[in-house]
Amino acid sequence: MKKFLEPESVALIGVPRQSGPGSYNNAETMLRYGFQGRIYPINPNAAEICGLKAYPAVGDVPDTVDLAVISVGRDRVIPMVEKCIQAGIRRIVIITQGFADADAAGRDMQARILTMARESGVRILGPNTMGVVNNFKRFTTAFIDLEPPRDFPPVSLIAQTGVIQVAAQNMAYRNWGKAIDIGNGADLDVVDALEYLAADPETKVIAVYLEGVSRGRAFLEAASRAALSKPVLVFKSGRSRAGARAALSHTGSLVGEDHVFDAAFQRAGVLRVKSGMELKDAIRALLLMGEMKGPRLGVLTITGAGGIMVADACEDFGLTLARLPEGLAETLQKGIPDWIHIGNPIDIWPVGMIGGNYPGVFGLSLEALLRSPEVDGVVVILPVTNSPLHANLNMENVVARVRQQVGNSKPVALWPYIDTDAFIDRYEAIPGVACFDTIEQAVQGLSFCHHYHLAKTRSIPVQKQFPYDHEALKPILRKGRQDRILLGEDAMSLLRIFGIPTAGGAMAASGQDLPAAAASLRYPLVLKLSGRAFLHKSEWGGVVTGIRNGEELRSAYEAMIRKVRERDPGVAVGAVQVQEQIQGRELLMGLKRDPQFGPVIACGMGGIHAEILKDVHQSIIPIDQAEALHMLTSLKMFPLLKGVRGEASVDLTSLADCLERLSFLALEIPDITELDLNPVMAMLKGCAVVDARILWE
Amino acid sequence: MKKFLEPESVALIGVPRQSGPGSYNNAETMLRYGFQGRIYPINPNAAEICGLKAYPAVGDVPDTVDLAVISVGRDRVIPMVEKCIQAGIRRIVIITQGFADADAAGRDMQARILTMARESGVRILGPNTMGVVNNFKRFTTAFIDLEPPRDFPPVSLIAQTGVIQVAAQNMAYRNWGKAIDIGNGADLDVVDALEYLAADPETKVIAVYLEGVSRGRAFLEAASRAALSKPVLVFKSGRSRAGARAALSHTGSLVGEDHVFDAAFQRAGVLRVKSGMELKDAIRALLLMGEMKGPRLGVLTITGAGGIMVADACEDFGLTLARLPEGLAETLQKGIPDWIHIGNPIDIWPVGMIGGNYPGVFGLSLEALLRSPEVDGVVVILPVTNSPLHANLNMENVVARVRQQVGNSKPVALWPYIDTDAFIDRYEAIPGVACFDTIEQAVQGLSFCHHYHLAKTRSIPVQKQFPYDHEALKPILRKGRQDRILLGEDAMSLLRIFGIPTAGGAMAASGQDLPAAAASLRYPLVLKLSGRAFLHKSEWGGVVTGIRNGEELRSAYEAMIRKVRERDPGVAVGAVQVQEQIQGRELLMGLKRDPQFGPVIACGMGGIHAEILKDVHQSIIPIDQAEALHMLTSLKMFPLLKGVRGEASVDLTSLADCLERLSFLALEIPDITELDLNPVMAMLKGCAVVDARILWE
Repeated sequence: MKKFLEPESVALIGVPRQSGPGSYNNAETMLRYGFQGRIYPINPNAAEICGLKAYPAVGDVPDTVDLAVISVGRDRVIPMVEKCIQAGIRRIVIITQGFADADAAGRDMQARILTMARESGVRILGPNTMGVVNNFKRFTTAFIDLEPPRDFPPVSLIAQTGVIQVAAQNMAYRNWGKAIDIGNGADLDVVDALEYLAADPETKVIAVYLEGVSRGRAFLEAASRAALSKPVLVFKSGRSRAGARAALSHTGSLVGEDHVFDAAFQRAGVLRVKSGMELKDAIRALLLMGEMKGPRLGVLTITGAGGIMVADACEDFGLTLARLPEGLAETLQKGIPDWIHIGNPIDIWPVGMIGGNYPGVFGLSLEALLRSPEVDGVVVILPVTNSPLHANLNMENVVARVRQQVGNSKPVALWPYIDTDAFIDRYEAIPGVACFDTIEQAVQGLSFCHHYHLAKTRSIPVQKQFPYDHEALKPILRKGRQDRILLGEDAMSLLRIFGIPTAGGAMAASGQDLPAAAASLRYPLVLKLSGRAFLHKSEWGGVVTGIRNGEELRSAYEAMIRKVRERDPGVAVGAVQVQEQIQGRELLMGLKRDPQFGPVIACGMGGIHAEILKDVHQSIIPIDQAEALHMLTSLKMFPLLKGVRGEASVDLTSLADCLERLSFLALEIPDITELDLNPVMAMLKGCAVVDARILWE
Repeated sequence: MKKFLEPESVALIGVPRQSGPGSYNNAETMLRYGFQGRIYPINPNAAEICGLKAYPAVGDVPDTVDLAVISVGRDRVIPMVEKCIQAGIRRIVIITQGFADADAAGRDMQARILTMARESGVRILGPNTMGVVNNFKRFTTAFIDLEPPRDFPPVSLIAQTGVIQVAAQNMAYRNWGKAIDIGNGADLDVVDALEYLAADPETKVIAVYLEGVSRGRAFLEAASRAALSKPVLVFKSGRSRAGARAALSHTGSLVGEDHVFDAAFQRAGVLRVKSGMELKDAIRALLLMGEMKGPRLGVLTITGAGGIMVADACEDFGLTLARLPEGLAETLQKGIPDWIHIGNPIDIWPVGMIGGNYPGVFGLSLEALLRSPEVDGVVVILPVTNSPLHANLNMENVVARVRQQVGNSKPVALWPYIDTDAFIDRYEAIPGVACFDTIEQAVQGLSFCHHYHLAKTRSIPVQKQFPYDHEALKPILRKGRQDRILLGEDAMSLLRIFGIPTAGGAMAASGQDLPAAAASLRYPLVLKLSGRAFLHKSEWGGVVTGIRNGEELRSAYEAMIRKVRERDPGVAVGAVQVQEQIQGRELLMGLKRDPQFGPVIACGMGGIHAEILKDVHQSIIPIDQAEALHMLTSLKMFPLLKGVRGEASVDLTSLADCLERLSFLALEIPDITELDLNPVMAMLKGCAVVDARILWE
């Protein structure tokens, strides 16, 4: 990948003869950008382009070509790739669009190009890409003329689009250091780019724009490794259904279910942003401030209203207000009237004005906040003004001095107002200090720093192994794979093999078998229809609860048969399931095979509210006990599990164990495509699956 | 209020002798700001301040003084107010802090000042205020030196803080036209300021920053009237619990429950913003683009990724993607390859580039979108660049021409990227066009325009009158007022008088009365403890359901008595409630008297999930049927009421009627402070209150 960003010689295939306005001549843009390497325009109809000698074909270039950039019409791309391969060129950027992003013919051509690349060992970036920008080398492959930045941070971008590299002033913090547009990602993709940037010493923060991924597990691993050494931000669009549809038509990549991406990003330790604004702010926060080790904010404000806005934003972004450092209130209270209330947020205006020593109390307070073991980061709200009348309000030297005295272990986010633009650079030159456009963005910036800390220090789950009876599994697995589905007692017995607790139950092939089926079970019982015809049992009147004895069981069975016949005389009832009735809080658990990320485990609220309230947490497999408990505590319904109004908690350990076993099961039987346990009853002691369905594709 | 903003003569009381750096001399700031009126500094120790003749006392000024500005220490404020009154001054700004914002002594002084004002007819702004800014007159009372803006829009601010007027460049769009800091609002408050700005021809958009209100109903009415003539934006902070605490210590205003404010703002037709960023964007959107009459967006983008971001943002902000105008796809498809897919978002890049007529297809598409009856507003994503190579990408003239051709009835929000700052003013000079920093903000800006339309065209509920038996109400009302509470059948009978359906029930004073109580009821029955000792019945085992006959009723009663005795032998069971058992979807309904806004009605999910999931909608009383139905459809649980998986809907009309009657009840018995109906069972036909509690303070 490296030579894509810093080639010494480049061949431009498809560069137009014209240059100047409206020509999109990438020899011209490359020259204007200040690239110092050798440029070879390839054009059979020109001897010279932009003052550079042109060659009829790549094979004619009398030099080693590190990189070829192809921008001919889509039908001429394959022959050009062929010529590059023949000429011994090892790296190709294909700018041209109209491949997997367009139609079936385009997809076929893209597949052909990929085969050519694989067979020859040549690496391809694109098609449908702007290529790369590397400001360290003043190199760009784009055909859009951009001003090379005087100043750019060590922040690099990987995107499935060119717009974010072109709009560097709009979506980056100042600019990008390097940018890679993977386009359709036919060969080189986000995984390759991540691996390169993770190891790149010129990159301190990685920003990724994704619409989908095609190698989900590899992405997870590459992102996870990258996140250990530097912050990785992901702006994943196509969150909404309409957005996903638009994404499909855009780059032709796989767009998965959005909350599976959330689970994957969480597992990989990368931070998700949801807008261009968040992208910019998160980069600024992480680049300038780094980690914040806890959620507790100290607030130093020259306006009471600002303190309230910080408090609101804390709640929005998951941070808290710290306790005031011990002794600080007493110190500040000296020499000022009693009626001035001192708390956190510290409203420095009355203290500083009435005491007549604003810089003194400002410095004292900032230092106390930064030294306090109760404070993890600080928000400062202060006026910055060019007015000669207010030079005394300028706290730049105070902030710098305190920073030097206390060291750089805690971030400081500023909202500097009035003549903001004149002061940002000066405040941001102080280590660990970043300035934001609004108070809310300052707090959100710190929350990114905190989430980065959580991501960096997260533990990576290791799957616990559970012994099970491999022999007992064989026949039931055979049946499942043959029928592509397991229901009722069949599904239950598979679960029992893996030690997942289930409601006691048995099948009765007919009415006569009911007493035998019920013999080993405790009343009250539930009678259920079973079999593929009755996937939605309740629609058939196929669940009868509260059966208190053998007589009621028989009459429930007869009534059930009658109902089915009434609804559809052609359907046979077959075997029915008799099950012990269990009381508890209803949850659902499940497994799903995601096309990108593989097995995903879910846990959420069960019962009638499940589908409406969508209170479900998903995790990528494997999970461990800590992650299983995290899944449970993340639910909105968690207080119900924990017990409201003095009720006892349900058995959370047993629910977590159940989830861990489910994760193990998913790894042991990797061909299951879907598994639903709904409901799982959580009890004061233990839990039990009441209904289950297991599917093979 | 007007003369506060455009006085011809001002006396400044407490202006320091010193001027220059660090002196906060408001004579100096007023002069520097360019005020052309007469300024009289009042200072017994100076003959001249900033070149102005100073007077020892206000009474000494040989001129009519339109406005006095007091900024002495808090203990000297009252005498100064007295002197102003004696001197015949009618308007006073009190800058000084340390009143209701501080302690009990400060609250007393503020009350005294208010009394003085009321008795003399003098109007007071403050205390604890920066006062006013009026850029139309280059007038400011603030002691902070600000650059007077060259350019400011007809947007005015009312705030409970000075920071937002000082930070005009940070929180306003360009600047404020006028700003009024009401401070503690002792006399003039947000209501007065709203009334003034509603009628002010120099104000086209009103922005309000609130921490709380003290005259809730008057605020509602003033805001509601203002919102009919111009957009009113409210940034209400203190949303979070921590924020509300901070607000209390800031201005001493009443901070109410935050979702009651939501209900109030909705009723008043004002738009709420939740951050400084939203405030700025909403002003920009409403000032430049005005109303958007529907939620359907057309999207014209030069980048596919931008289209996806728009689609995501649509979901976030409640807008939708419009259908492509008829015939447009066919027109655009002419002369370009088949594989270029045309939809909405319209990805104009391949169409324009490959066809070689970018300005043509851009103009054609924009015009088609703006003319289409299926499109309510347009988002445009386009590069704007100073590069001489890309003059052909500049669409400013195209946008202006199309706007002229199609008129200004639909808003156009732009995301112009690359050299944005150089182009904003030029694009925003086109009527109905606004530029935003990010794609998401552009979409959100349009959503403000749409919500403004909804607010402007909203219907204001009129309370339906229901006949009821006034005589029957008297004794029960007497009992309630005497006991301060009505429970069980007492509460039920009050509800029945107002035609609110309830489960059939009766009281039994003892075990012997059970058969009589049950005589007119249909089994199955429920037996419930009653009385104030058992407010949380379930903790006492005080609810038994599923009672199928008289025998079961008796044994349930005996068991209940036993349980109560076991728990607390000192408590007597007294009368019990026997009630028909009702099946249905559980809701809760209720009334609450909000200290600011008066009676509020609530409706939400009932049952065990109610407290956890907080799926509740609140409205300000009165409501009508439309609003009652809106309350129901706003609930997350609404799909459950409407019926999932082919179930029939519950009786929504009957639920709405019940809410309307509840609203009527609240107006008829205005001293009820709280009323809880929980649960209300919604059935396929009708609904019924199962448990009720009515409280008087």
